[in-house]
Amino acid sequence: MTWLSIAADSPFPLENLPYGIFTTPDRAEPRVGVAIGEYVLAAGALATDQGLRYARTLDASTLNPFMAAGPPVWHDFRQQLRRWLTDDVHRAVVEPHLLPLANALLLMPFEVADYVDFYSCEHHAARLGQLLRPGQEPLTPNWKHLPIGYHGRAGTVRVSDTPVVRPSGQSRPSAAEAPVFGPSGKLDFEAEVGFVVGVPSPLGKPVALEDFADHVFGVCLVNDWSARDLQAWEYAPLGPFLGKSFLTSVSPWVVPLAALEGARTPPPTRDVAPLPYLDDSSCPWGLDLTLEVRLNGQLVSRPPFRQMYWTAAQQLAHLTVNGAALRTGDLFASGTVSGPADDERGSLIELSWNGERPLALPDGSTRTFLQDGDTVTVTATAPGPGGVTLGLGEVIGTVHPPATQ
Amino acid sequence: MTWLSIAADSPFPLENLPYGIFTTPDRAEPRVGVAIGEYVLAAGALATDQGLRYARTLDASTLNPFMAAGPPVWHDFRQQLRRWLTDDVHRAVVEPHLLPLANALLLMPFEVADYVDFYSCEHHAARLGQLLRPGQEPLTPNWKHLPIGYHGRAGTVRVSDTPVVRPSGQSRPSAAEAPVFGPSGKLDFEAEVGFVVGVPSPLGKPVALEDFADHVFGVCLVNDWSARDLQAWEYAPLGPFLGKSFLTSVSPWVVPLAALEGARTPPPTRDVAPLPYLDDSSCPWGLDLTLEVRLNGQLVSRPPFRQMYWTAAQQLAHLTVNGAALRTGDLFASGTVSGPADDERGSLIELSWNGERPLALPDGSTRTFLQDGDTVTVTATAPGPGGVTLGLGEVIGTVHPPATQ
Repeated sequence: MTWLSIAADSPFPLENLPYGIFTTPDRAEPRVGVAIGEYVLAAGALATDQGLRYARTLDASTLNPFMAAGPPVWHDFRQQLRRWLTDDVHRAVVEPHLLPLANALLLMPFEVADYVDFYSCEHHAARLGQLLRPGQEPLTPNWKHLPIGYHGRAGTVRVSDTPVVRPSGQSRPSAAEAPVFGPSGKLDFEAEVGFVVGVPSPLGKPVALEDFADHVFGVCLVNDWSARDLQAWEYAPLGPFLGKSFLTSVSPWVVPLAALEGARTPPPTRDVAPLPYLDDSSCPWGLDLTLEVRLNGQLVSRPPFRQMYWTAAQQLAHLTVNGAALRTGDLFASGTVSGPADDERGSLIELSWNGERPLALPDGSTRTFLQDGDTVTVTATAPGPGGVTLGLGEVIGTVHPPATQ
Repeated sequence: MTWLSIAADSPFPLENLPYGIFTTPDRAEPRVGVAIGEYVLAAGALATDQGLRYARTLDASTLNPFMAAGPPVWHDFRQQLRRWLTDDVHRAVVEPHLLPLANALLLMPFEVADYVDFYSCEHHAARLGQLLRPGQEPLTPNWKHLPIGYHGRAGTVRVSDTPVVRPSGQSRPSAAEAPVFGPSGKLDFEAEVGFVVGVPSPLGKPVALEDFADHVFGVCLVNDWSARDLQAWEYAPLGPFLGKSFLTSVSPWVVPLAALEGARTPPPTRDVAPLPYLDDSSCPWGLDLTLEVRLNGQLVSRPPFRQMYWTAAQQLAHLTVNGAALRTGDLFASGTVSGPADDERGSLIELSWNGERPLALPDGSTRTFLQDGDTVTVTATAPGPGGVTLGLGEVIGTVHPPATQ
């Protein structure tokens, strides 16, 4: 279908075409790239060569200008890319702009405006309720009425492979003791899916659930690193703060929503009817993504995104229903993705039951929480058209010992 | 002292010199201004005329470049301003750049990076604990060990006089009932003081309490509008979200820290010894600001900022102790400022005891929460050198009926 040779198991077939920002050893200036097979296509230079009217938005050091250009431009460029890569007549023009992915350094793909983290997986929320509020109902009374979320720190969202320096802070060994200061002893990962806003919305104008795809550009993977001991002590009554704000990692490739049409799937049946602004019966945005979490290369979990209780379209409708404005670069993440099975849990606090039941790894070691030197890798796949499988790339992080202050 | 005629009761004497961004009817391009008496000084043009090496940072449409330039530049320019405005020899050069404040439209003074809201007033936190968690200890166990805070929505921080459109959202009339959707019936103000970061800090490097003034550029007033009914239903377990994210208003003038040296005062005695990174005994940053809150022009409260339990220097040390990076434009607010007395309460939920005891206004009307058409004005003063009083400007907002959707 394409004149380019692409391995059958490549995460980046012609049906994917995710966007990122890269540099090469011979050119330090960051530029927009599109991943295809084992190549990255220098999108700005090609668009400029071809005289596309929106070439300027691709001749940039972040995806923000292109994301802000909106769906007609996104769709036109996607069609152009497919045409260039399939019709052999364009080969001579395109080939000079194809650079080996192996030589590219992948940078933060977009400038984050606001970062919101949701909490939309029932399996995760119910387990955390059991662990953190034993003896109470696992889900708070609001959980099935609205997608619970909170604002995170946009300034510490970084691209995959940023070192995860073990954070220090206050924790309390037990309710009878005074708090102590020191490096977190309960460093955890959270495997999540992030949605990136392209088209802004003005203050005072809610974005209806049906208008989701008019605003959201694409999808990335998110690891919302968490220090459970810091979080447990600080979070009442205003929510997580330092337990989360030291780092949030995102994958370098943003997969456009258009690539995920084949992954759309009905969300789970809700036992409580959503209020009208959250009713998604005519606009279901469940996505059949399968995440995989590896610890030092060993598979520890396969969280199923299709089971998320609240969809990203519901999250966006909720986020804006009070009139909150959207900006290009707003990132909102799903919350930890977990399934009902033991090997579908998207965080160590679930996998080790808050440290009470150490997780046995294939190499014979065990983990309660992360150790210095541990590497966590989150990947995901989605069904594409015609039985092809799309990859969302990966978000990696290695734990470093605490900084000496 | 200055060749300029300045009224004795001007909020902007020579000792103040706050920074803002303005336009005039004959020039639509936003530019940096310094308030002095009844004038705004076009700082960029004057700095350029005078060939200052950092003139470029003042020739900008936000304060961010100047704020990023750091304390040596801030202090040098402040000295230049004082010299220009006191020595008559400069009058001919300076006067053309002095424009009537009355003709200036004041815009958002800086581009907000991350917005954090603290909860550092004991009188406020204890009252809210009594109201929202009756029968429990008013303060959560962590309150006197760390300055509780959470991230707010940076994208909806706007300058004073932005209309306050009454937000809609979910609330629950009682614990026995299902949630309903509609305009907030408990719209409130929160009188706060905001601190604006100029100099960034890298990921992984905590900012010590003593380094506060190396990073923080100045101070503004903040009204953190709150929909109490939305907040009460949504906030467990991850904190406030839509109840706050529809709008946060800031005053147009940022008063540099240097102007507030005379307002520094010892913070209240703490009954719990802070952990070492929060120990401010050698670096007290209490500030003797007196806020005033007016509802439709009628004084309803005079919250005393000097009584805040946690100082801004402690807040900054806490915010970064886990390695979180700072960016130019980060805004962190104090939390509602309230004193022990009835007429020192910085929010209507305190003034009307969550609506149970309507507040009587001088004009004979009463309020539980804000009505459409109400105008809230927050002002503040600080003692300056030699008995002069400095004004922090004002943050105003008028409540508009809910948008028809």
